[in-house]
Amino acid sequence: MINFASDYIAGAHPEVLKRLVETNLENLTGYGTDEYCKEASEKIKDTLKNPDAEVFFVAGGTQTNQLVISTMLDNFAGVISPATGHINVHEAGAIEYSGHKVLALPSENGKIKAETIDSYVTEFFKDDSFEHMVIPGMVYISFPTEYGTLYSKKELSDIYSVCQKHGLTLFIDGARLAYGLEGEGNDVSIEDLSKLCDIFYIGGTKCGTLLGEAVVFTHKNAPKRFVTLTKQHGAMLAKGRVMGVQFDALFTDNLYSKIGKFAIDKAKYLKEMVQRKGYKLFVNSPTNQQFIIVSNKKLKELEKEVIFSVWEKYDDNNTVIRFATSWSTTDEDLKTLESLL
Amino acid sequence: MINFASDYIAGAHPEVLKRLVETNLENLTGYGTDEYCKEASEKIKDTLKNPDAEVFFVAGGTQTNQLVISTMLDNFAGVISPATGHINVHEAGAIEYSGHKVLALPSENGKIKAETIDSYVTEFFKDDSFEHMVIPGMVYISFPTEYGTLYSKKELSDIYSVCQKHGLTLFIDGARLAYGLEGEGNDVSIEDLSKLCDIFYIGGTKCGTLLGEAVVFTHKNAPKRFVTLTKQHGAMLAKGRVMGVQFDALFTDNLYSKIGKFAIDKAKYLKEMVQRKGYKLFVNSPTNQQFIIVSNKKLKELEKEVIFSVWEKYDDNNTVIRFATSWSTTDEDLKTLESLL
Amino acid sequence: MINFASDYIAGAHPEVLKRLVETNLENLTGYGTDEYCKEASEKIKDTLKNPDAEVFFVAGGTQTNQLVISTMLDNFAGVISPATGHINVHEAGAIEYSGHKVLALPSENGKIKAETIDSYVTEFFKDDSFEHMVIPGMVYISFPTEYGTLYSKKELSDIYSVCQKHGLTLFIDGARLAYGLEGEGNDVSIEDLSKLCDIFYIGGTKCGTLLGEAVVFTHKNAPKRFVTLTKQHGAMLAKGRVMGVQFDALFTDNLYSKIGKFAIDKAKYLKEMVQRKGYKLFVNSPTNQQFIIVSNKKLKELEKEVIFSVWEKYDDNNTVIRFATSWSTTDEDLKTLESLL
Amino acid sequence: MINFASDYIAGAHPEVLKRLVETNLENLTGYGTDEYCKEASEKIKDTLKNPDAEVFFVAGGTQTNQLVISTMLDNFAGVISPATGHINVHEAGAIEYSGHKVLALPSENGKIKAETIDSYVTEFFKDDSFEHMVIPGMVYISFPTEYGTLYSKKELSDIYSVCQKHGLTLFIDGARLAYGLEGEGNDVSIEDLSKLCDIFYIGGTKCGTLLGEAVVFTHKNAPKRFVTLTKQHGAMLAKGRVMGVQFDALFTDNLYSKIGKFAIDKAKYLKEMVQRKGYKLFVNSPTNQQFIIVSNKKLKELEKEVIFSVWEKYDDNNTVIRFATSWSTTDEDLKTLESLL
Repeated sequence: MINFASDYIAGAHPEVLKRLVETNLENLTGYGTDEYCKEASEKIKDTLKNPDAEVFFVAGGTQTNQLVISTMLDNFAGVISPATGHINVHEAGAIEYSGHKVLALPSENGKIKAETIDSYVTEFFKDDSFEHMVIPGMVYISFPTEYGTLYSKKELSDIYSVCQKHGLTLFIDGARLAYGLEGEGNDVSIEDLSKLCDIFYIGGTKCGTLLGEAVVFTHKNAPKRFVTLTKQHGAMLAKGRVMGVQFDALFTDNLYSKIGKFAIDKAKYLKEMVQRKGYKLFVNSPTNQQFIIVSNKKLKELEKEVIFSVWEKYDDNNTVIRFATSWSTTDEDLKTLESLL
Repeated sequence: MINFASDYIAGAHPEVLKRLVETNLENLTGYGTDEYCKEASEKIKDTLKNPDAEVFFVAGGTQTNQLVISTMLDNFAGVISPATGHINVHEAGAIEYSGHKVLALPSENGKIKAETIDSYVTEFFKDDSFEHMVIPGMVYISFPTEYGTLYSKKELSDIYSVCQKHGLTLFIDGARLAYGLEGEGNDVSIEDLSKLCDIFYIGGTKCGTLLGEAVVFTHKNAPKRFVTLTKQHGAMLAKGRVMGVQFDALFTDNLYSKIGKFAIDKAKYLKEMVQRKGYKLFVNSPTNQQFIIVSNKKLKELEKEVIFSVWEKYDDNNTVIRFATSWSTTDEDLKTLESLL
Repeated sequence: MINFASDYIAGAHPEVLKRLVETNLENLTGYGTDEYCKEASEKIKDTLKNPDAEVFFVAGGTQTNQLVISTMLDNFAGVISPATGHINVHEAGAIEYSGHKVLALPSENGKIKAETIDSYVTEFFKDDSFEHMVIPGMVYISFPTEYGTLYSKKELSDIYSVCQKHGLTLFIDGARLAYGLEGEGNDVSIEDLSKLCDIFYIGGTKCGTLLGEAVVFTHKNAPKRFVTLTKQHGAMLAKGRVMGVQFDALFTDNLYSKIGKFAIDKAKYLKEMVQRKGYKLFVNSPTNQQFIIVSNKKLKELEKEVIFSVWEKYDDNNTVIRFATSWSTTDEDLKTLESLL
Repeated sequence: MINFASDYIAGAHPEVLKRLVETNLENLTGYGTDEYCKEASEKIKDTLKNPDAEVFFVAGGTQTNQLVISTMLDNFAGVISPATGHINVHEAGAIEYSGHKVLALPSENGKIKAETIDSYVTEFFKDDSFEHMVIPGMVYISFPTEYGTLYSKKELSDIYSVCQKHGLTLFIDGARLAYGLEGEGNDVSIEDLSKLCDIFYIGGTKCGTLLGEAVVFTHKNAPKRFVTLTKQHGAMLAKGRVMGVQFDALFTDNLYSKIGKFAIDKAKYLKEMVQRKGYKLFVNSPTNQQFIIVSNKKLKELEKEVIFSVWEKYDDNNTVIRFATSWSTTDEDLKTLESLL
């Protein structure tokens, strides 16, 4: 069986793993206070050219979303999300578990528009009974989105302007950030990101590490006592080094970019190949996730030889499926897939 | 500087790390559904000789405590803990964050007595206004305790009997289980544990892994939809394999026992050595944590050469400090410590 | 100024108030254990012809919704609601505060269809990743709805069948129940209600009391230790008698029905009158809330003389407003309104 | 049966009830925006001579404690309470339900000392691992306490100084405030209270109303969007007037003081009488709660004729019981009690 199910089917990128092995017997302090966490943090701040950034490492994506959103939001506030946003659909209610409503707004191909947010918030405060409703306090978006799409620099700037106009915090989920930054036609650099939002995270799990996400508060805006809050959420690893060492590796010699580029090259090949084979794309994704429409008959056939994600029903006879590439995708598997399609 | 600060100062035991490296490029499914998680789970069940056990892997100790306690307790119930229990002192209120009160009862050297629990619960239900109070629903204890001490088999049996008499769930925190099982004079086997409580966890982070704890529900009593609950708590790793592979290694060729034994040998040496040097033990600990009373002057001196934990004030002139050994403790460091004391 | 803003603009129905006055100096036990609470509960059970019903009194509607939903739902579950449901819009996130997601489904004129629920749940469990999503555990509807509309007996039966098929609890918010039961063309009796759902509440605040809602668990299905849970939510009144006495009055000599009938008569008059005057109804409501489309110019004029609710924008030139009648509506005010329209 | 069980055995003080009756048919706006709420609020601020005070009305004591504490505390913080404090013992875990730990410190006769707080907090921040513990953020005390005792002005000033020194919010539970202000030997005026804490509440339920407590934020320090937070907690009454009218009555013509004085006079009589009869007081209470030691035999006898609270076991042969007086206590009942003792 070949496997295109996701970008987390393999372990760590070999360079990352190597560093874990090399540092394994060093005696280090716990809970993210070790030198590797500090060094990784410095390297990230250098890459962002943002000395005001504050960096924390958290084990997983849902955990990061829950921790960041619930500690940044006022008690009375909710978080705006595209209806298809990960926090609204695939996190088992982790945000609501922390006491906050996800305010789902209409989205297209995973993206929400600045105008949609602006008009929602403007109308909200005109409502006589708004004090009896969940006050919007934050906007959550993903880069890339759950449909592999990207916001342009202009779109992000517009969203951030709307957020600032209304006093909303902007949080960008970068679980697949490497693949977004190197996406086809992308005009948003990681430096830009750091200026165009209040918090974002640099995905590790889906971009080369065994686990770990690097949360960046872009302007010294980490919540007070974030360490205690992290502990309280059960989100603090005793051996914080495990994340420090890995992110240190990712931000050494441009490894994060290389990982992104590699996967995007494979995705491009895959995208052209499926179209050549006559399949239709469900979304025109410039990143490592490709959504393809296949007949239900073909779906059954493929399932015998390939592992992939069944996304959604397209119509009675066709289904949307997803193939994901990553740093670990091999040409051999791509060739096999080609022959099967 | 030599380091006796804790049992999580090094990375993974070399055998564990080796397996991570060997399996790194295998394509596996996510979220704990991979074969290594299954295999590790089977090996644990075999070790316990308990086919009814259900095993789940969770990244860290506080997370495990929060997840297990909040999903096992009824909404109206609280968890009884020794006053010095980890959940009552060192988890930043993670249990309360999940909505439940920790009912702290008097303890001695980290241990609570069956009679203390029995009489608390008996008196509780005699109170006319008990319905306005937090109903006890669970008992939490640690093996070994936060003071390195151990419950005997008789003591555990008594506690479990009291729990069953009152309808309380018994949960044992085994963050340092390896060191407990191999502790001096310990008469509780891991098979016994599996019969003497409703849930316990087998510590990985402090006993040889990079991260990860194996939660064991001893009689098919895992909460309904535990996978969804884990996700909701942000406690699910995408690459569940990271824990599966490591626990598979821990339960291959008795590695878990070997790790425990090794650390206990080092701890014994340390314990005898400090006494030989004329220091007094604060607690007579049979496990890998040793609590020693040093003068405040000596404390200052030691801090220049050794990393250790300052536990608590003993009196105006003396302080309790803790040295911990582990699978990574070296004879060289022990010798250096000896010369400094 | 005349006032048609809501059904809670006056104090208590005179008969209800009279009983509060008469019983004021009696010495009674607290927390809902007094004889009036018991008597009111018995009268309600008699009215429902349902000896298996369990009745509790809670001060307000949002509190009731939060208490019932959060104590009846499993930790992993969410509650399905029409998108326009009170819990989804006008309760400041009280359900999410209690840790549960509101799963908003499309609705029309405040009503959700049995088929909508059925297909949502059916598709949900077909999704490969449903375990990472909020599991539907309950259905919440209102009778009458937030738009004054009513479910027919057939519609309710269908919804309850779908709930039972999928193992969902059905909870009916009856904040305005008196006005629903006496609504034009209504074919659902209070006895029917008690057979067609798992929990419902009999609204007091909007139907003649100073405060208080009577929650009915229809088949001995109140959560274990509901008294403790009520206290924990801050939802227990020390002088539970205040609700007991009032509900005792409401269920003596058919007062609850009389209150409903009175308000419906006034609403019918109002509805015919506005149509006679050439205004269009936004919804054809058979109950005490009437939604009328007025030009923005008329809106401004009316606001000088009448208090009412501005519901929503109809189009650029027109607005939907709401007039509500109740047991306290006077013919004089209706006449004045007529002359102003 | 005569009844000394508590101070909430009767309905409302006749003057209070009269105002509810007189205003019953007035049409008023909802949710605490009516004129009576405003007027009551102004009268309270006048009484306090504190124009910076912000006043809100909440239905009950536990609800008030939960709402105030959870909305004033930072997410990472807990609330210090005397071990015998109401929030620590008799609120079914309402504070923990809201996510915060109650940090119980030793108390005597219901009172905590400034020094106890000071040394706890000072030691806390000296602990190397304090970031892994619940940060103290507030101090909760009661006036009068659960044992009927009072803090002197000096004691309160000292506690407030310690709070200000450590950045802790001071919150005073005044469920029985009327009886404290008029307590024997009390030297704290309501004006003083308003200067000696950050928040306190003026008890209504136990001091003459059917329900309702007036929360006073003493220096424009109400949490942002407190109305929304109140709604979110299910703590907002639609007919806020019910509390406004009653508190308006309590603060008209010194009724609140009169109610306090009346109950204190009755309590004094009771206290002298039981001592005259040879019973021993468990606590020397200057307020309306009197704690008396009776033999278990006498206890059984009394229970046949009198309703009272069984407080706690004194020793194997004796029990502490509580008699409470209030505005509704009659001389006749006191005489009957005298004859029974």
